[in-house]
Amino acid sequence: MENKEPASTAPHDSGEWLHALATRLFPICRSITGAGFRESLDIIGEQINDLSVKSVPSGTEVFDWTVPDEWNIRDAYIETPSGERICQLKDHNLHVMGYSLPIDQELSLEALNEHLYSMEDQPEAIPYITSYYTKRWGFCLKHEQREQLQLGTYRVHIDSTLEPGELNYGEVIIPGETDEEVFISTYLCHPSMGNNELSGPVVAVGLIRWLQSLPKRRYTYRIAIVPETIGSIVYLSRNLNHLQKHVVAGFNLTCVGDNNRYSYMPSRAENTLSDRVLQHALKHTDPDYHRYSYLTRGSDERQYCSPGVDLPVASFLRSKYGTFPEYHTSLDDMSFISAEGLESSVQLMQRVCLILENNLFWQTTVPCEPQLGKRGLYPTISMKNNYDPIRKMMNFIGYADGKRDLIDIAEKIGHPADELIELAGQMQENGLFAGHSNPQ
Amino acid sequence: MENKEPASTAPHDSGEWLHALATRLFPICRSITGAGFRESLDIIGEQINDLSVKSVPSGTEVFDWTVPDEWNIRDAYIETPSGERICQLKDHNLHVMGYSLPIDQELSLEALNEHLYSMEDQPEAIPYITSYYTKRWGFCLKHEQREQLQLGTYRVHIDSTLEPGELNYGEVIIPGETDEEVFISTYLCHPSMGNNELSGPVVAVGLIRWLQSLPKRRYTYRIAIVPETIGSIVYLSRNLNHLQKHVVAGFNLTCVGDNNRYSYMPSRAENTLSDRVLQHALKHTDPDYHRYSYLTRGSDERQYCSPGVDLPVASFLRSKYGTFPEYHTSLDDMSFISAEGLESSVQLMQRVCLILENNLFWQTTVPCEPQLGKRGLYPTISMKNNYDPIRKMMNFIGYADGKRDLIDIAEKIGHPADELIELAGQMQENGLFAGHSNPQ
Amino acid sequence: MENKEPASTAPHDSGEWLHALATRLFPICRSITGAGFRESLDIIGEQINDLSVKSVPSGTEVFDWTVPDEWNIRDAYIETPSGERICQLKDHNLHVMGYSLPIDQELSLEALNEHLYSMEDQPEAIPYITSYYTKRWGFCLKHEQREQLQLGTYRVHIDSTLEPGELNYGEVIIPGETDEEVFISTYLCHPSMGNNELSGPVVAVGLIRWLQSLPKRRYTYRIAIVPETIGSIVYLSRNLNHLQKHVVAGFNLTCVGDNNRYSYMPSRAENTLSDRVLQHALKHTDPDYHRYSYLTRGSDERQYCSPGVDLPVASFLRSKYGTFPEYHTSLDDMSFISAEGLESSVQLMQRVCLILENNLFWQTTVPCEPQLGKRGLYPTISMKNNYDPIRKMMNFIGYADGKRDLIDIAEKIGHPADELIELAGQMQENGLFAGHSNPQ
Repeated sequence: MENKEPASTAPHDSGEWLHALATRLFPICRSITGAGFRESLDIIGEQINDLSVKSVPSGTEVFDWTVPDEWNIRDAYIETPSGERICQLKDHNLHVMGYSLPIDQELSLEALNEHLYSMEDQPEAIPYITSYYTKRWGFCLKHEQREQLQLGTYRVHIDSTLEPGELNYGEVIIPGETDEEVFISTYLCHPSMGNNELSGPVVAVGLIRWLQSLPKRRYTYRIAIVPETIGSIVYLSRNLNHLQKHVVAGFNLTCVGDNNRYSYMPSRAENTLSDRVLQHALKHTDPDYHRYSYLTRGSDERQYCSPGVDLPVASFLRSKYGTFPEYHTSLDDMSFISAEGLESSVQLMQRVCLILENNLFWQTTVPCEPQLGKRGLYPTISMKNNYDPIRKMMNFIGYADGKRDLIDIAEKIGHPADELIELAGQMQENGLFAGHSNPQ
Repeated sequence: MENKEPASTAPHDSGEWLHALATRLFPICRSITGAGFRESLDIIGEQINDLSVKSVPSGTEVFDWTVPDEWNIRDAYIETPSGERICQLKDHNLHVMGYSLPIDQELSLEALNEHLYSMEDQPEAIPYITSYYTKRWGFCLKHEQREQLQLGTYRVHIDSTLEPGELNYGEVIIPGETDEEVFISTYLCHPSMGNNELSGPVVAVGLIRWLQSLPKRRYTYRIAIVPETIGSIVYLSRNLNHLQKHVVAGFNLTCVGDNNRYSYMPSRAENTLSDRVLQHALKHTDPDYHRYSYLTRGSDERQYCSPGVDLPVASFLRSKYGTFPEYHTSLDDMSFISAEGLESSVQLMQRVCLILENNLFWQTTVPCEPQLGKRGLYPTISMKNNYDPIRKMMNFIGYADGKRDLIDIAEKIGHPADELIELAGQMQENGLFAGHSNPQ
Repeated sequence: MENKEPASTAPHDSGEWLHALATRLFPICRSITGAGFRESLDIIGEQINDLSVKSVPSGTEVFDWTVPDEWNIRDAYIETPSGERICQLKDHNLHVMGYSLPIDQELSLEALNEHLYSMEDQPEAIPYITSYYTKRWGFCLKHEQREQLQLGTYRVHIDSTLEPGELNYGEVIIPGETDEEVFISTYLCHPSMGNNELSGPVVAVGLIRWLQSLPKRRYTYRIAIVPETIGSIVYLSRNLNHLQKHVVAGFNLTCVGDNNRYSYMPSRAENTLSDRVLQHALKHTDPDYHRYSYLTRGSDERQYCSPGVDLPVASFLRSKYGTFPEYHTSLDDMSFISAEGLESSVQLMQRVCLILENNLFWQTTVPCEPQLGKRGLYPTISMKNNYDPIRKMMNFIGYADGKRDLIDIAEKIGHPADELIELAGQMQENGLFAGHSNPQ
């Protein structure tokens, strides 16, 4: 395949725009099912083209799992012995344990304590707690508030429903010149937390908008916005054969909103095209990017890379889930992520896509070095040191054997792959290079 | 193949029992042939089931070698000019060079000196000297004793025979569920030395007793107790095709009786199953275990790993032959080895066998992670940090792709393989794992 | 193939003889074409047998290149306003830019300056400048001299011709027992410079004389003495299929005349037989030899290793072109190279050839270790430490499995390959080794 024009680098959305979108999504009470998730998908659908919202009925068997009932909640609070309402849902979505059963009951502080969740070591934060598959109810609160609770009779009120309904997810397909696919997944089920996880869907929106603005694409792009775990399992149960056949590279976006160091977690296979391109782009964006072991995984790569699924999905992260104190608490709020963080994360993924689009197996068309002087590409006077400026070009040519793809050559000669794209085009125009989709 | 019950860990013999057995064998005057070797085998045969004692006639051609005549000795001494008897066989077996011809003769000190062996740098030790294939006679003594010898006429007396007879070795076959074999070899020809070599046969006895006590075994175990070099060559000449066909792992036991650091010498191929399991067990028993190069070999692995034989035989050692000053001298006595050393060496080999027995290619039976919560194996509340206790299990599952065996997964996820056996069984009982004998 | 007698180590030429040959060639005004190149080849042809001088007409298409017109020069100088003649060709060949057009003209200093080349940072050196493919004229001089030039009218005189003629190169084929070839290339086009490049042809002459003195050779040796770049491209265009079919190892000789550290540049593939043997010989000659990256290449390996050519050509160098200040200036004169440097470079290449000649896949003829004692090759008394002197032999035998060649075994057991040649012969005479040309 020849790809004469490198994909254009259409301008991207500003960090402010991305941050504003996150701010709009933040207050919605999401869970793995329910109205909040659908409302969030609707807002996302306003920003991009062709978002398809899918629905799977509760009770559907998906591999070893069953889609749970749909959970919705309207109101919740605890009334103290003095009649004060605390832990109100309307104050913070995290005050109610996810998937809490409805309840309206009076009980002692001792009995209530069985249903309260707080963190002694982070007394100023509300923890994020869920119980999707075992029926419970509960409230989450700051430990410092819990310690103020007086003996007496409390009334707990949760106005929720847990009944057959549906699980939803969003899907965007951006067609390319080939049916080979780049797969991108992120998740949207967490209520009112910034880095984990609104950053993922928001960066995905920025990336989708850029991809849709390109005049053409070599690859077809498939983006899934799912509830974590059960959503990726549902998605795989519906698309496994297709994905295994078409996906050449895949990425899980999670915790990509803060502006701290860049991070990477390999796919299980560790050496897929996804791993190669992501590491290459990261290395040339931030030489100190952090590499996490697959042994520390905890997001949807657990499903995508599982035995029997085996998709080439690597993870792009900034501050990884589980490693920052604000993780899974009310402190992971809109101040934890930033316009700069969101924007630079979109840019990193654009760089990844740009390299993938041009990642051909370049091959010279003549034996020996071509005579570049007659084409104005080589100094016509031979003089000490005047080879240095063209060494990058000569090394690119010197490794263009049709057996190495662009990333491989870039790694070998020590230059960023995207800085070689223009050179490849120039060689191709001069009839000196052919670009192949597969090794020769 | 399914292996529902991991091999039981039957109790092992105490170090005291093992040390007592060594003490009983110590005084016997062994060589590569003769009555002492047979007597030693008989004592070993009392401790275990099914020891088969084999016999090969002198003169038998074995590859490039010929089985030598049988050597037996009844008495030996030197009578000094003053009539004192020194270097008496009855005082120490090492006083007589192995395979010494019979002699009874008077001679000057100068002439005698041609037949005396001592060590200037270890004046307090009697060296261990043999001359199996060139006919000689000689006496070995402490250098400090040699320096006291006065001028005069000496009488040397060696009452030995060297004549056609037989070479013997012992063999134990412990049948398993398959005809794939684990081969263990050790040697018994050294007289009155502890680490090199009584430790080898004694540890083999402890291991055989444990293997025979197991209710069943996946592998068939073949243990050979031979005279060094010529014995292993004889064994190979009789069994080479069978061994090449059936042996999946093999170990040479030598110098395993002292309680110093654990050591390992790879097979020539360096990456066989034997090498993998032995290194894995050693690493998790003693992170500082020493790895010797195959270039420093000096025991029967020289034959088992030789070109044209190519068996997967790695060596387990503690203080390696040639590296400790007491080696091949009268100082390598019963005080150099210990009950603790012998017992812990048996335990190390039990660990090796236990891992081998359970070293299946584990594979999950469903795509994606299984839902462990509904089986009581996963926390039902999702809460920060409560994934940590189950991470080992999730990582085991995450790599159970049917392409990696237990050792490989254990190395990848950083846990001892034997600590994963119970977990594998649990997964298998829940129908989530299948265990295969070969990669899928 | 059996190679019973290792190639003899015929005596080599003295460093003085080599240096004298370089001294004789030094004053000749060479370029990539012309009389000077032919005269130099003629002198070389007097020192060796069977030099064949080839001719290719100007205008011949060679891959992406065209053979240029032939350049010859008889005289050149600049006449200063005061009538003094400077930059005379007869004073130094480097004073005239290579391939300068004929000219005889008066012009101002300002106009002249457009045609002058000097180096501010090396004011005491005349630079080496050429313009092969773009028609120009120019003079090169010391910067300190240039700064003395007064305003006024200058006369420039270049008595040269640039017209259709021929390009020449030399070729020596030294037949061996097989049609597998060792290819050696060096270049001769630089005028009046010592390390880069007279050292290359002179070391090649020394090596050819030694190769031709050997009673026989396993390999056929092919040596090409070419003008750089266009010459190697011409050579490849005429011989590519043959070379790709027959060459098993190849070496580019450049900058091999100084007595500084030894250096190596890999072939593009990095792991060919050429790379293995050259690194092995270098390691055992100078453990601190320098390894250059292929990314820093700048000589004819650019053609030999280019995609589509892919010959196994590694480079042997001492002080590499571009890395020493004298490079491509009048300071790279006969004092920069030395008799010791030239002689030790020939010896290194002899060592390379000697190892290649004996680089068989050695294989033992019997399973197990052979009984060396009965052949007088092994101590007949077994005694602590008396294995050490024969460990090299036993390790050679222990790895002689027919799958490793001599170099591979030598690397594995840590001895120079050429020190194993005699041992291999001894084993072969005893019927214990067979030497194969290919892995078994």
